Amino acid sequence: MTLPKPRRASLERHFPILQWSKTYDRAALTSDAVAAVIVTIMLIPQSLAYALLAGLPAEMGLYASILPLIAYAIFGTSRALAVGPVAVISLMTAAAVGNMALQGTAEYAAAAITLAFISGLILTVMGLFRLGFLANFLSHPVIAGFITASGVIIATSQLKHILGIDAHGHSLAELITSILENITSTNIITLIIGLSTLAFLFWVRKGLKPLLLGTGMAPRLAEILAKAGPVGAVAVTTLSVWAFGLDTHGVRIVGDIPMGLPPLSLPSFSADIWSNLFVSAILISIIGFVESVSVAQTLAAKKRQRILPDQELVGLGTSNIASALSGGFPVTGGFSRSVVNFDAGAETPAAGAFTAIGIGLAALLLTPMLFFLPKATLAATIIVAVLSLVDFSILPKTWNYSKVDFSAVAATIFLTLGFGVEIGVSAGVLLSIGLFLYKTSRPHVAEVGLVPNTQHFRNILRHDVETDPSLVTLRIDESLYFANARYLEDYLYDRVVCDEPIQHVVLMCSAVNEIDMSALESLEEINKRLQEMGIKLHLSEVKGPVMDRLVRSHFITELTGDIFLAQYDAMVALTGANAQKSP
Amino acid sequence: MTLPKPRRASLERHFPILQWSKTYDRAALTSDAVAAVIVTIMLIPQSLAYALLAGLPAEMGLYASILPLIAYAIFGTSRALAVGPVAVISLMTAAAVGNMALQGTAEYAAAAITLAFISGLILTVMGLFRLGFLANFLSHPVIAGFITASGVIIATSQLKHILGIDAHGHSLAELITSILENITSTNIITLIIGLSTLAFLFWVRKGLKPLLLGTGMAPRLAEILAKAGPVGAVAVTTLSVWAFGLDTHGVRIVGDIPMGLPPLSLPSFSADIWSNLFVSAILISIIGFVESVSVAQTLAAKKRQRILPDQELVGLGTSNIASALSGGFPVTGGFSRSVVNFDAGAETPAAGAFTAIGIGLAALLLTPMLFFLPKATLAATIIVAVLSLVDFSILPKTWNYSKVDFSAVAATIFLTLGFGVEIGVSAGVLLSIGLFLYKTSRPHVAEVGLVPNTQHFRNILRHDVETDPSLVTLRIDESLYFANARYLEDYLYDRVVCDEPIQHVVLMCSAVNEIDMSALESLEEINKRLQEMGIKLHLSEVKGPVMDRLVRSHFITELTGDIFLAQYDAMVALTGANAQKSP
Repeated sequence: MTLPKPRRASLERHFPILQWSKTYDRAALTSDAVAAVIVTIMLIPQSLAYALLAGLPAEMGLYASILPLIAYAIFGTSRALAVGPVAVISLMTAAAVGNMALQGTAEYAAAAITLAFISGLILTVMGLFRLGFLANFLSHPVIAGFITASGVIIATSQLKHILGIDAHGHSLAELITSILENITSTNIITLIIGLSTLAFLFWVRKGLKPLLLGTGMAPRLAEILAKAGPVGAVAVTTLSVWAFGLDTHGVRIVGDIPMGLPPLSLPSFSADIWSNLFVSAILISIIGFVESVSVAQTLAAKKRQRILPDQELVGLGTSNIASALSGGFPVTGGFSRSVVNFDAGAETPAAGAFTAIGIGLAALLLTPMLFFLPKATLAATIIVAVLSLVDFSILPKTWNYSKVDFSAVAATIFLTLGFGVEIGVSAGVLLSIGLFLYKTSRPHVAEVGLVPNTQHFRNILRHDVETDPSLVTLRIDESLYFANARYLEDYLYDRVVCDEPIQHVVLMCSAVNEIDMSALESLEEINKRLQEMGIKLHLSEVKGPVMDRLVRSHFITELTGDIFLAQYDAMVALTGANAQKSP
Repeated sequence: MTLPKPRRASLERHFPILQWSKTYDRAALTSDAVAAVIVTIMLIPQSLAYALLAGLPAEMGLYASILPLIAYAIFGTSRALAVGPVAVISLMTAAAVGNMALQGTAEYAAAAITLAFISGLILTVMGLFRLGFLANFLSHPVIAGFITASGVIIATSQLKHILGIDAHGHSLAELITSILENITSTNIITLIIGLSTLAFLFWVRKGLKPLLLGTGMAPRLAEILAKAGPVGAVAVTTLSVWAFGLDTHGVRIVGDIPMGLPPLSLPSFSADIWSNLFVSAILISIIGFVESVSVAQTLAAKKRQRILPDQELVGLGTSNIASALSGGFPVTGGFSRSVVNFDAGAETPAAGAFTAIGIGLAALLLTPMLFFLPKATLAATIIVAVLSLVDFSILPKTWNYSKVDFSAVAATIFLTLGFGVEIGVSAGVLLSIGLFLYKTSRPHVAEVGLVPNTQHFRNILRHDVETDPSLVTLRIDESLYFANARYLEDYLYDRVVCDEPIQHVVLMCSAVNEIDMSALESLEEINKRLQEMGIKLHLSEVKGPVMDRLVRSHFITELTGDIFLAQYDAMVALTGANAQKSP
């Protein structure tokens, strides 16, 4: 088939698979297949565990790890991203759906499927309208704080499975209270399974690889075996329960998992359910996208590849829609499994498609063997995975660098722990934006003078500079817009009222990136009032884009003074005596 | 009584009356009393009319013009502001309360009283916490658009009284549809009264003062007589209705107004009512404050006086609480009546207290005479007053200056007309903030070079400048923060990937007023990746406050290049050959 060039390029932009599949060869196939085997081994226990975390039947974890991976292989632009259920999104799913239905009911599962569908639609539409930039409004420290706090909540929520008791709650306090209330009914055998799995997995993480390397094993193989730790734990604990009939002693097991490929499912289209889930779906979409795109960018940079954020939205969006249509729940690109995929040598998104086949085979063949899998084992897998996300060092780091960033992070962590993920992350976003607006509404204004023997002007309070009593030069360190227009007026009047011999005020606009209509009106007002006081107003170093706009306004004709290209020109022109011919 | 100095100053800050009353003398008393008489004459028909506009019994307009004026005289800082019911706030009151109860019911009046109380609390708390700056987030064009659209809606809503029919609706379309549906039941006598009053008031506005001046009358007296137009219309139309028994021919009249001073009233404390009214109360508080403070500032500037915005919040807040406690509804400083007060010579807030006495006397003595006052007369008063607020010129003005401002104004006008005041103004605020954030998230970045024979650097695309192929200098025209941190990364990689001989990248930070934690992490990332490409990263013209913070981070030690005080120093140091000893 031969398409005209531009049409073909556009097709490739929307279907990245058309691009990489052109040069796909046997070498790439081998690399991708090896990576897929490793990721499959890692993903089986993870997908079961995250379904459990989301409060859903275990098989939904498998379903969410088949079709979504195929959709991402077609529409995604990252070569190494591994899509599927992840911890934070599963927790957010539980929080969103838990408001609407009881865990274990058909309504609960249906709501999770609908949530994936809405979230998929939101992501896809954002991608088609190129709204990827919206994700930039989550500041890095807020994300770091949110992930850390979510990790703490997730780990705490899994303690009930380790203890073999019932407990529930969205906030840390609720969870701990609920666990303490029921701790007397702890099942000792479950606790032993849980703690020993935990200890084993921690040891695998830290100690197994060095040990294997010590035996002279190839580093790559050692790496793979270390990653297979959870699968080992699953096998051993499942066999133990089966062999000793521990389920009859109160050890809770996964139980019957339907055998076979995912069924076709349809989301609910009830307006009521949609309006209840919509805000949660937005939060899940944005958090999922931010988490996924930052992993994808990190991995792409290592191989000098590029990802396209707007196309990534489409990739994740179609993945979530695929998840909803095949009985799954919200998915995104996971950090640890993508790194494993990358390290294992995945070269194209085909690795994801191969992983989907692997999980599909597991769903077809392995599910009967998982009947006796203790929930405590899955809980231990989750705890070990999320504790690696917990990193409170963002608190001292931001405290040291910027109190504003610190307060946003601290509030995000506090509110997430105290009131759950949805309130926590919403507050973090609003607070980041609010604090930014607050800062820009009270801009830094510096009175500047000439640095001797240069043409450079700096703050008179920080540097030894030359000034002239008849001339006040104010450098405004912010764009002028509605939120700070009045502040500038007040500042300026306060400054000129006290000193008497002032004849000229120069506003040095090197840091003014915009003057909006409100600020223009303020400048007109300032110009008029200074004129009444016999003071001329000048501007200097006005940037091109700002000047383009000013010339279309009356302000330029009404301005009592001049507009100078450089502040040095202004000083020479306005205080002739002080002119220096050479620095 | 002698208080220690600091305590007395603090008392005077919270009770401005203590300050101006110290020097109050007979001359000020005379001026204030004259101004009060004129404002009282103007305020009687206005307060009745705005009660009608808010859907409330006429006497509540009088009640809202007594105690609130006394409260403002004690706590307010403007010497000329005249507080009372105003058009836009009355319309917003009708919109807020209309969602909760039917006009004419006791619940409706009680909700309006409660709305005044909540709004008063919000304003007072904002004042005590010095949150006056929040009002800055309403951009001038958005306010102008909102007031214009509100004026159109108010004028349209009053047509029903001119026609003598029933009609209702919050949006322009609803109002017009409702009027057209009922237009066949127009009462001809009412229409004649309404149209002739309208014609008379428009003529008074434009024609009466020149006419009186033509007869050789003193300008001040002519001005006062022109302002008394509405009172004349009230007297003539009331007498006509009484004399000819027009009320028995279907002319709707104000009817029984209880005689006497306002009763003590208490707001409702039902949680349900509060939660229903809270958002409306916030909007009314902010719009009322912005309108009032801009009038107060304009008038204060004319006499070189200062107002304190945070204390103004307390003044307006206590006025609204006073209104709620005396059977009134939300009030604020009105534009036209404050200008009249100022022009009539008011020297202190005592003029407001005297006006309160005037309105109190009217409530005690005049109410029986207002029984036959036709509602059409009041409607004509409102229409003439609000049409002076309607000014669509903000649309071409912003279109010409900035499409971003234009779109915010156009949306505010469109949404206010189409969906009512609350949606209109909320959308205007959110859109202003959203567009500002969008702009800052995609900053202007200019590649700059040296303007020959200077030490000044400008955009290579706009100016004839000197550059060096091994050196790329990028001037970033925005503070670096979370919303644009990734944009800068992308921009920079795209720029350095194409050109080969680049050895140095200088980020010229003259317009960077802040680098937050997210942006710092991006800079660290950029530094690392450029290092891998063999390119050194430098900064120049970093501002004091930004530098203070950078030195507390790891970035400074990891930076591959240097930090230069001036961009010229950077060019000399990095491209030695190009150095010029003198400009």
